[in-house]
Amino acid sequence: MEFFQRVKSMTLNSVRLTAFGSTRRVGIKVEEDNNVQSLLKADTPAVAIFGKSWDLHVTEILKTSIEENLNMIRDTVGFFKQKGKEVIFDAEHFFDGYKANSEYAFKTVQAAVDGGADCVVLCDTNGGCFPLEIYEITKKVCETFDVPVGIHCHNDTGVAVANSILAIQAGAVHVQGTFNGFGERCGNANLCTIIPDLQLKMSYKCIPENNMARLTTTARFVSELANVAHDERSPYVGNSAFAHKGGMHIDGVNKNPKTFEHINPKLVGNERRFLMSEVAGRSTILSKINEVAPHLTKDSPETKQIIDKLKVLEHEGYQFEGAESSFELIIRKELGKYKPFFKLDHFKAIVSEPSGDNFSSSAMIKINVDGDEEITAAEGDGPVNALDKALRKALERFYPQIKEMHLTDFKVRVLDSQTATAAKVRVLIESTDGEHVWSTVGVSTDIIEASWRALVDSVEYKLQKDQE
Amino acid sequence: MEFFQRVKSMTLNSVRLTAFGSTRRVGIKVEEDNNVQSLLKADTPAVAIFGKSWDLHVTEILKTSIEENLNMIRDTVGFFKQKGKEVIFDAEHFFDGYKANSEYAFKTVQAAVDGGADCVVLCDTNGGCFPLEIYEITKKVCETFDVPVGIHCHNDTGVAVANSILAIQAGAVHVQGTFNGFGERCGNANLCTIIPDLQLKMSYKCIPENNMARLTTTARFVSELANVAHDERSPYVGNSAFAHKGGMHIDGVNKNPKTFEHINPKLVGNERRFLMSEVAGRSTILSKINEVAPHLTKDSPETKQIIDKLKVLEHEGYQFEGAESSFELIIRKELGKYKPFFKLDHFKAIVSEPSGDNFSSSAMIKINVDGDEEITAAEGDGPVNALDKALRKALERFYPQIKEMHLTDFKVRVLDSQTATAAKVRVLIESTDGEHVWSTVGVSTDIIEASWRALVDSVEYKLQKDQE
Repeated sequence: MEFFQRVKSMTLNSVRLTAFGSTRRVGIKVEEDNNVQSLLKADTPAVAIFGKSWDLHVTEILKTSIEENLNMIRDTVGFFKQKGKEVIFDAEHFFDGYKANSEYAFKTVQAAVDGGADCVVLCDTNGGCFPLEIYEITKKVCETFDVPVGIHCHNDTGVAVANSILAIQAGAVHVQGTFNGFGERCGNANLCTIIPDLQLKMSYKCIPENNMARLTTTARFVSELANVAHDERSPYVGNSAFAHKGGMHIDGVNKNPKTFEHINPKLVGNERRFLMSEVAGRSTILSKINEVAPHLTKDSPETKQIIDKLKVLEHEGYQFEGAESSFELIIRKELGKYKPFFKLDHFKAIVSEPSGDNFSSSAMIKINVDGDEEITAAEGDGPVNALDKALRKALERFYPQIKEMHLTDFKVRVLDSQTATAAKVRVLIESTDGEHVWSTVGVSTDIIEASWRALVDSVEYKLQKDQE
Repeated sequence: MEFFQRVKSMTLNSVRLTAFGSTRRVGIKVEEDNNVQSLLKADTPAVAIFGKSWDLHVTEILKTSIEENLNMIRDTVGFFKQKGKEVIFDAEHFFDGYKANSEYAFKTVQAAVDGGADCVVLCDTNGGCFPLEIYEITKKVCETFDVPVGIHCHNDTGVAVANSILAIQAGAVHVQGTFNGFGERCGNANLCTIIPDLQLKMSYKCIPENNMARLTTTARFVSELANVAHDERSPYVGNSAFAHKGGMHIDGVNKNPKTFEHINPKLVGNERRFLMSEVAGRSTILSKINEVAPHLTKDSPETKQIIDKLKVLEHEGYQFEGAESSFELIIRKELGKYKPFFKLDHFKAIVSEPSGDNFSSSAMIKINVDGDEEITAAEGDGPVNALDKALRKALERFYPQIKEMHLTDFKVRVLDSQTATAAKVRVLIESTDGEHVWSTVGVSTDIIEASWRALVDSVEYKLQKDQE
């Protein structure tokens, strides 16, 4: 409920928020059903209602009559139509239901149509169906009912994308899926694949044309938010999607990209990579450089210098998507536009078990600000917290505004899982001063050192911005 | 060459080794081509020869005439047939070639047939084609030529599995793919999906029936060999492929597995998993409890006791979704079915900056096994790694099998981001002994302590399983 309250203050352009829930329960009046009331309270322009289309589920799971199930669908859809909502009906297990009892599966669609549904979505909930059957069955539904039809697939047989596309080719006009295919078991249909498949290769219109080049960045951002390693082999948006290796392929792409590339990677905001010689996309980086130094062009020696630095850092495991503030600091440092605010002399962090009464860790730190030294220590919940506190304590005398800021999130990603706890880790830190939010990154084989680097960037970024 | 020499001493049952290479080069006699000679020296029963089927590639990449390309195909296939080999011809870029110049694409197939090819494989080398076109074009080839037809797909539009299956439905009898879909860019068609799709769900015969239950173990083994993190969301062979969460789904699977599972996971050597989470109802927890104590019912006092313990832990920030092994240990402990393998006396972990030459952290640990004490220390990349090493070192004397296991992943989640580095963190650790994979969890305001708890659970789980 808090989410629905807070999202109201956002301006949504090409997105229509949809609350998702089930039909009313068995034997209850629709207006007295708690879930139905919650959906209503969400106060969204659209609702998606799921209900059963497979008679087996009605009798064995819901344990009610197949007539009551039709009433539940019709009542619930009708209730939300009366309230002025756009209503999407998700016909759960539709394809399995159709194969078991096609007549009844069609009746459930008819119940939704009778209730006034704006769209009926055929769901392969168990993900066990195959493209040709999805095509045939979806076609029959489109021919039988005068209602827009949608498709909802899962990837349990590895064909969720294909099934979604074949449903569209059979006449469906609405696709349900998720970014990066996140979803239970083997995942939902991957929208990061389906959108460019349909729009770039099959001439369907899915998203505003100008948004397509943001697909790769957005997909990565969603992975970061979910704290999941981005699948680098994923079509269109993976780091390897347009990576060429071996003399013949690279030679071919250089002679004519069409010979070894099915689309131009720029269209989805991705880049061609030649694995032998790591050539980064200059134009992408240039636009970021120009935020700090608008006069630089792609041929400036400084640009080359920054790109070289970037290559070294990326090779070390850095990634600046979701850590633009660290990237901005690197640009400043490379351009000589950065004067350090402090210098670390040394620190030591200690964790003990059994721990102290109110803390488990302590840290000692010594810094130097323009020749003026400060040594101090702090206790904390864990070594990063102790270090964070000690650093602030040491800096406060010189920069009182440091009190305004605090850290709001940190994430840790293992980069090379085979070496497990000895692996390189990437730490992402998010900070705020109540007005702005910024994100920084640190990489090291030591989780504390990686955190320290991100911590330092965060403090430096704040001090730099205040100075401006 | 060494590989082909050494593999001769192996007994291969359902595998036929095939050497893979290209047609002879432009303007050279086939018997004088070095690559052709190498293929011959490999001394395999079968060879796969790839050649161009797209005229664009012939004129722009090979820079020769489209007639010479046909000669290259016919000569090379014919050469190996004369040597008594089974010859598979891979028609590279066949589908793109067909779309550009269908007549010429067919001529390349005819050239292979004229050379005596045993199988002609249609390749979607750039991975840009879609299921319906693959189906139509493959069908035409099967109708036109009296030769067994194969299919070779890449996953650049996310439909390699679907394309392979539709080619089979159109009349192809041979599928080229890789285990786990490994391959350049977005990968090749994933045989771990295609084999069970075809054999378990569509009644085609692909592999000996008794081998099917080894699919999951084999897929994991191939990932281990390739030194690549196994994709846990992959159909059939991923750890999440049959994982159920949410009260309704779990309730449904318990009532009748068919309602939420498209196949029985045992058929591919995988397992059903019930994810523990706040939305999981009593029946979910009970089925997990019953794995350890089959006699308990939902009304047993022990069941209530475990559920109460779970509530306390969830309130503290624990979450057992993706950490079933920790959950199993809790059940054992609550039921008095767990005898600790060791007792921690104390540990101390120290991180310094500047760091030492080869390490940044050190840890000292003292444990007690049945009254026998062991104190030791280790250095590591970060305090968790140092602790991990020190713990194993201390335990190895008592439990040598600890050497078999290693950690493969760890994740950190901040639970209460407002308090940032002082916040509670949840650490998830994944471990393997090469055969099984298990996941454990630890929660604390101290990241090291949280890691320690997950680490201890991981070791205890391994020792417990070995004891059984």
